[in-house]
Amino acid sequence: MASDPVYEATCTAPVNIAVVKYWGKRDTTLILPTNSSLSVTLSQDHLRSLTSARCITTTSNNSNANAVADRLWLNGHEEEIQQGGRTHRCLAELRQMRKDLESRDSSLPKLTDFALHIASENNFPTAAGLASSASGLSALIATISTLYALLPENGVSVSDLSRVARQGSGSACRSMFGGYVAWDMGTRDDGHDSVAVEVAPASHWPDLHALILVVSDKKKGTPSTAGMQRTVATSDLLKHRIDHVVPARMDRISTAIRNRDFDQFAIETMADSNQFHAVCLDTQPPIFYLNDVSRAVIQLVAELNRASVDAGKGYLAAYTYDAGPNAVLYVRERDVKLVLELVLRYFPQQTFDDPFHLGPEPAAASSFVQGFNAAVIPEHEVGAVARIIHTKVGDGPRVLSSDESLLNGEGMPKSLV
Amino acid sequence: MASDPVYEATCTAPVNIAVVKYWGKRDTTLILPTNSSLSVTLSQDHLRSLTSARCITTTSNNSNANAVADRLWLNGHEEEIQQGGRTHRCLAELRQMRKDLESRDSSLPKLTDFALHIASENNFPTAAGLASSASGLSALIATISTLYALLPENGVSVSDLSRVARQGSGSACRSMFGGYVAWDMGTRDDGHDSVAVEVAPASHWPDLHALILVVSDKKKGTPSTAGMQRTVATSDLLKHRIDHVVPARMDRISTAIRNRDFDQFAIETMADSNQFHAVCLDTQPPIFYLNDVSRAVIQLVAELNRASVDAGKGYLAAYTYDAGPNAVLYVRERDVKLVLELVLRYFPQQTFDDPFHLGPEPAAASSFVQGFNAAVIPEHEVGAVARIIHTKVGDGPRVLSSDESLLNGEGMPKSLV
Repeated sequence: MASDPVYEATCTAPVNIAVVKYWGKRDTTLILPTNSSLSVTLSQDHLRSLTSARCITTTSNNSNANAVADRLWLNGHEEEIQQGGRTHRCLAELRQMRKDLESRDSSLPKLTDFALHIASENNFPTAAGLASSASGLSALIATISTLYALLPENGVSVSDLSRVARQGSGSACRSMFGGYVAWDMGTRDDGHDSVAVEVAPASHWPDLHALILVVSDKKKGTPSTAGMQRTVATSDLLKHRIDHVVPARMDRISTAIRNRDFDQFAIETMADSNQFHAVCLDTQPPIFYLNDVSRAVIQLVAELNRASVDAGKGYLAAYTYDAGPNAVLYVRERDVKLVLELVLRYFPQQTFDDPFHLGPEPAAASSFVQGFNAAVIPEHEVGAVARIIHTKVGDGPRVLSSDESLLNGEGMPKSLV
Repeated sequence: MASDPVYEATCTAPVNIAVVKYWGKRDTTLILPTNSSLSVTLSQDHLRSLTSARCITTTSNNSNANAVADRLWLNGHEEEIQQGGRTHRCLAELRQMRKDLESRDSSLPKLTDFALHIASENNFPTAAGLASSASGLSALIATISTLYALLPENGVSVSDLSRVARQGSGSACRSMFGGYVAWDMGTRDDGHDSVAVEVAPASHWPDLHALILVVSDKKKGTPSTAGMQRTVATSDLLKHRIDHVVPARMDRISTAIRNRDFDQFAIETMADSNQFHAVCLDTQPPIFYLNDVSRAVIQLVAELNRASVDAGKGYLAAYTYDAGPNAVLYVRERDVKLVLELVLRYFPQQTFDDPFHLGPEPAAASSFVQGFNAAVIPEHEVGAVARIIHTKVGDGPRVLSSDESLLNGEGMPKSLV
C-alpha cells in the first residue's frame, strides 16, 4: 500500500537592518508606510529564522477534512493563530494564491483543502535584542510559497510574496530578498504597489560586513508599533522627513550601493539613523532608544571617521540604530579587523565569537588612524556592550532539504518545549 | 579741597531659561538668530550676576588721560578685553550712546573720556552647570547703562539696551527684562530689530516656580556656539523648525502666558525642548546633551503629567533642557511641594537647600497622583542629580546702592583672586 504523499517544505530567511528607516504607517491594517525604506540583508550563516510547513493530508485525526485548523509553533511553543490576525491574513492570502493556481491547472494537488502545521525557530536568542519578526515572517512566507509552488514560473514574483510578508510585519517584506533591498512605499490605497524590490544582489557588493553591538538596557523601550504612530500623530518634523528628506536619500543611497561607494553609503546611513532618532525625540512624549552606551559608540565611530577622512582615507564605518540601543556597524571587509580591534578596546568582551577567524585583539587606536583622539570616549567596562555579533551581507531565503525539517513524521514539531 | 566726584554704578542681572529655544545664527558677528525665542527670567534672590563699573577719573596713574584702558575682573580674575571682541564691542556701543547724550546736553559730565573698571561676580558656582554668560553680560550692560544714564527718560529703552546685550551673548538680551521675555529674531541685516521685548512682567504670573536639577555629566558636551552652527549647516529638520514650527509656537506660548494657562505653557515648553534636542541629534555628526539621567527625568515628568491629566487635573510640571544635561522644571506654586517630593524620591539628595521653607520629604508618588506608575523609572542613587536649586520667576536687572560695590575706593576689585 502506497503511503500518502508528503507535502512539506523547509526554508530559512534572513534578518535585515535598515539604512533608511521605516517609521510611520499610513494604513495600520495593510501596513502601508509613510516613507520608503532600504536595508541590507544579513547572512543566514549567522542569523536566520528556520521554518517548516506541512499539509496535514491524513484525515484520521480530524473528523472534518475540510476544516482548516492550522497550527503554529514558535521556538517549540504553540502559538494561537488569531482569526483576522496578521499571521491568519498572510496564510489566507497565500491560500488564495494557491487556489488561483489550482483552478488554472487541475493536475495540481488541492493543497488548499488541507490544514497546515508550521514550526519556526530562530538561531539567535531573544536576548540578542534583535527583532525576529522580519526574519520569522519572511521564513513563513518563503516556506509556504515553496510548499504551494508560488514561484516566478507560476506567475508569482518575489515582490508579490513581499507584499504578503509586508502585511504580516512591515519590514519583513525586505527579508524576501538578499543583498540591498528597497521597500517602495507605493501610492495605492490597497497597498498593491507597496512591495520590496532588489536594489542590488549581495554578489554586487559582497564585502560589506556588519558588527552588531548588543547594548544592555535595563528598561525596555517603547514598542515600535505604538511608537511610530505616536510620532505620526505628534511630530512636526516627521512630515518634513517624509516629504523632503527620504525620497532624495533613497536615490542617493541606491546610487551609492550601485557604485559601491562606501563613503556616500556611510554618510547617508548615519544621517538617516540620526534623523530617525531625532523624530523619535520630537514625539510627545518623546521616545528614547539610544542610551549612554549607544551615544558613546556613535561618538567613537564619528571620531574614527573624522580622523580617517582628515587623513585622506575616507570613512571606515557607518553606524545605524533601530528601535533599541543596539548599534549595527557596517564596515568594508578590508577595514573590519581594524574596527573590531577598536571596538574591543573601548567595549571589552569576555569572549568574542570570531566567525571570520580574524583573531582581533583590543588595540590602541593610534596604531591605525593618524590623529585619532583616543580620549573621545572612556574605555567602558566589560558588559556595557554585552555581545558582538559579526556577520556580513547575505542572500535571500533559502530552500532546505527535508532532512532539516522541524516537523516529524506525524507533522508535529520535533522539539516541543 | 573737594574730592573728585565718583562715577560708579552697581547692578545685578538675572538668569533666564528659554521655553522656546534659540539655536542657530543667521549672522554670527552681530548674533542674529535664525528663530525667535522666549524665556522666563529667574529670581535674582537665588541666582544673579553682580557687576560694578566705575569711571577712572583720576589721571595721576595714567600718563594719557584720553587713553581708554578699560579693565575687567570676573569673579576676581582679571580678563583681557580683546580688541574687537564681544565685550569690547558692547562697551564701544554704550560709549557711543553716552557720547550722543553728552553732545545733546553739554551739562553732562564727559564720562566717555574716562576708562572703565568693571568687576563682576556670579553668586552661583560654575559647577552648577548654569550658563553664566546671559546674566553676566546683562549685568554688564545694566551697570554701564546706569552709570551712563542710558535711560528711557533720555531716549534709551530697555529693548535698545537688549540690542547691545544681544551682541555680547545672544540670549543675554532676554535677561534685560524680568518675567516673560521674547527675543524677536527681526528681519533686518543690521540687527536693529533683533531685540528683547516683555511678553508679561513677573507680576502678571508670579507663581511660576523653577526647579533646576543639576545633572552630573562626565563629559563636557559640544559648546553651544559651535554646536548651533553645525546644526545650521547639516540639519535637514532645522529649517522646518525655523520656518514652520517656531513662529506658531511663539504665538501660542505668548497667549498661554497672558492667560496664565499652565497646561498650554507646559505642552509648548516640553515640545520645544524635545524638538531642540531632536535637531541636535539630526546634526552631522550628532550633538547629544541629554544623558540617561536627563532621559529618566523626562520620563518621570511625562508619567506624572499623564496620570494627572487622566485624573482630570491637568499638567503638573514642564521640563526644559538647554545645551546640557540639567533639567529645569517649571511648576506652579500650588504644585511645587508635590513635585519636589516626587523628585526627591527618585533622585535623593544629601542636602536640599529649601529657600521657600516647604520642608519637602521624599514621598510615595501614589499619595499624590492617582494612577501614577511608580515603576516608570528606577529610584536613582544619591548624586545622579547632584543638586536641586529651587527658585521662581523674577524681575529684571536691579540697581544696587554703592554699599554693594565690588570696587574699593581706588576703583580696584575688593576681592582679587
